[in-house]
Amino acid sequence: MKQEGAAATDLMVRIGRQARAAAAQLAQAGSADKNRALTIAAEALSDQQSEILLANAGDLDAADAEGTGGALRDRLMLTADRIEAMSSGLREIAALPDPVGQQLARWRRPNGLDIARVRVPLGVIGIIYESRPNVTADAGALCLKSGNAAILRGGSESFHSAHAILRCLQQGVAAAGLPQYCLQMVPDSDRALVGAMLRLSEFIDVIVPRGGRGLIERVIADSRIPLFLHLEGNNHIFIDKAADLPMAREVVMNAKLRRPGVCGAVETLLIDRAVAATHLAPIVADLLSAGCEVRGDSASQAIDARVLAATPEDWSTEYLDRIIAVKLVDGLDGAIAHIERFGSHHTDAIVTADDAAAETFLARVDSAIVLVNASTQFADGGEFGMGAEIGISTGKLHARGPVGLEQLTSFKYLVRGTGQVRP
Amino acid sequence: MKQEGAAATDLMVRIGRQARAAAAQLAQAGSADKNRALTIAAEALSDQQSEILLANAGDLDAADAEGTGGALRDRLMLTADRIEAMSSGLREIAALPDPVGQQLARWRRPNGLDIARVRVPLGVIGIIYESRPNVTADAGALCLKSGNAAILRGGSESFHSAHAILRCLQQGVAAAGLPQYCLQMVPDSDRALVGAMLRLSEFIDVIVPRGGRGLIERVIADSRIPLFLHLEGNNHIFIDKAADLPMAREVVMNAKLRRPGVCGAVETLLIDRAVAATHLAPIVADLLSAGCEVRGDSASQAIDARVLAATPEDWSTEYLDRIIAVKLVDGLDGAIAHIERFGSHHTDAIVTADDAAAETFLARVDSAIVLVNASTQFADGGEFGMGAEIGISTGKLHARGPVGLEQLTSFKYLVRGTGQVRP
Repeated sequence: MKQEGAAATDLMVRIGRQARAAAAQLAQAGSADKNRALTIAAEALSDQQSEILLANAGDLDAADAEGTGGALRDRLMLTADRIEAMSSGLREIAALPDPVGQQLARWRRPNGLDIARVRVPLGVIGIIYESRPNVTADAGALCLKSGNAAILRGGSESFHSAHAILRCLQQGVAAAGLPQYCLQMVPDSDRALVGAMLRLSEFIDVIVPRGGRGLIERVIADSRIPLFLHLEGNNHIFIDKAADLPMAREVVMNAKLRRPGVCGAVETLLIDRAVAATHLAPIVADLLSAGCEVRGDSASQAIDARVLAATPEDWSTEYLDRIIAVKLVDGLDGAIAHIERFGSHHTDAIVTADDAAAETFLARVDSAIVLVNASTQFADGGEFGMGAEIGISTGKLHARGPVGLEQLTSFKYLVRGTGQVRP
Repeated sequence: MKQEGAAATDLMVRIGRQARAAAAQLAQAGSADKNRALTIAAEALSDQQSEILLANAGDLDAADAEGTGGALRDRLMLTADRIEAMSSGLREIAALPDPVGQQLARWRRPNGLDIARVRVPLGVIGIIYESRPNVTADAGALCLKSGNAAILRGGSESFHSAHAILRCLQQGVAAAGLPQYCLQMVPDSDRALVGAMLRLSEFIDVIVPRGGRGLIERVIADSRIPLFLHLEGNNHIFIDKAADLPMAREVVMNAKLRRPGVCGAVETLLIDRAVAATHLAPIVADLLSAGCEVRGDSASQAIDARVLAATPEDWSTEYLDRIIAVKLVDGLDGAIAHIERFGSHHTDAIVTADDAAAETFLARVDSAIVLVNASTQFADGGEFGMGAEIGISTGKLHARGPVGLEQLTSFKYLVRGTGQVRP
């Protein structure tokens, strides 16, 4: 066991050292070269569709042999369309502005010192993910464009698919003359390697875990490296007493049912007790008729008998499914207190025609994204106009909300003088 | 032991919960109230000078009884001037712009959604420090102004002094009607409390350790909370072949000897081999005549016999003293490679009259602060025009370089719609 641990560490240190050296070179690479790498990789994905599908068939066979089904098998499966989507994703990232070198601020001091704050890459980013092989392309491309070396560690179930995709990216890297080791994948699925990776603080600047609760909890417990955490989206919509009912109905339906499985889906509906008599029943009727289960507190049940009884756990649950919790609250203060107590600081919305209520909600709700009169499903880097994202950060440090190219950078201060010394 | 641990955790959880609740209120406080608290606290520091000096005398007596001397006793000691400096520091922080609520960006999407990114406080900040009692005032005031609740844990040696200072701050907080628990101090010097504090990730958003290597290493090893690390400043000045010699002499003397003990002091001098014959001797002569020890590689010793032999450890050492290491390097590439290998990514400078060399150095040196033709001792939030700072971050995440009011904030996205749903 001890020897295995040492071997895992040695292998990860070698990968880390290669990544660190590649990152120093990649940080100096021009936008044109990075974009050329992405464009050639996009072409390679299209051209090598059959090879990728073959590799994916191998992974699917192994999954079938283990009896893997349902959502997990679907996440693992590639199709011609999904490969084309990856390819156009790469082209889109190539078309985004390059954050590296952007001047964030520049000022002159009374002593003549000229101080500029410019964006630089973070360095080396570790991505730990599970079954979805397309994360290889999306995360790899975002890191490349933002000038960061990436160390990818995909799940064992998508091993062959991810490697086939990585080969396409590496062809782009090679053709553009970028450093070979700027995109590396951990070469086998031994779990000891994840442990070694999480301790590689000398060589990895930030880890982005993408996966289910088990993966995230393991990474939080074991990592000695800062994390960009994408935790739960236990999101709320508050129907204020000044809400327009047709708007409330449309927003709730969209926020819950457009895609119930995304992190921006609403999970709990809060309704001001003052309008519960008029607003609750039509919204519940919409949801039920669309096949959504509704679980509520006793006050909601008293108004609409079709509402099932909620348990205390419902207020903390991210269903990611066709289920919603409903609770009556005492006005804006009641809604904000409930969100503060049970929310996950991801995305929360109010529906109201009262500007003062909207502004209070915006100011007091401490979530990455706070919306007025719009669906929570807008919680997405693309919808924000930021281009592709690597996730939605629920942390407050460095990145909060959609993590796009800019959030994958740091900055440094450039100070230009003429011989100034400090008195 | 086990009971002690549980008691420490219970106490810290209570402090953390009080801080979290206070932070939610303080985040909504107006600038006028925060500035009033700071101004009243500044007055209290001046008015209560004799009480503070009395408390400090108690700490000094205890230190003397333990035989504490030299730099440590000096850091602990307060004087009327030092108390006045704290008081005017608070007034300066009151005069700085309030970062909370500042709009960082705002844009409109094609679907009409109005997206704004605004600064919000981080939440609760933990400060762990050692003997300098003035950190209580500086750090407490920066946290208060940036809307963050603070949990302060000072060293046992400055216990009474820190508490006397804290009382002045708390008088300001009370007089301005701000939440009582927005500034708390860990009430005794039991080390188990630091351990409990470092595990309080539910209630503390970021920890700022301020102290020597032992403290920092303990915090890194034990913290489950993100850190703003102020690590070593192993800073370099590179004398390029196109350096103006008088400027080089003046900048090196200032960077080393203005205050040898600050983190922005230069520790290693790199000289282009091409100008070593002309530039090394006068710079070494300046340093020696000012009482600075010079340790160099054999090539430096060959040029100037007064240079002592450097050992390999010298390249990695932050002396914080009247000692400097000197090494000849092969041009810009040699200098950059040395800095990449041995530097601590804090502050590095080039002296050159060659603009192209300057720009290459600025682009390729990966340090928080990179200077051209100026002293490394400008590494300071005040000198940057950012006002007071809580330290200089050597990390790349969230804050890099001087950590002032803006760096103590996060942001959130405010999205204002008119009923938009996602297609």
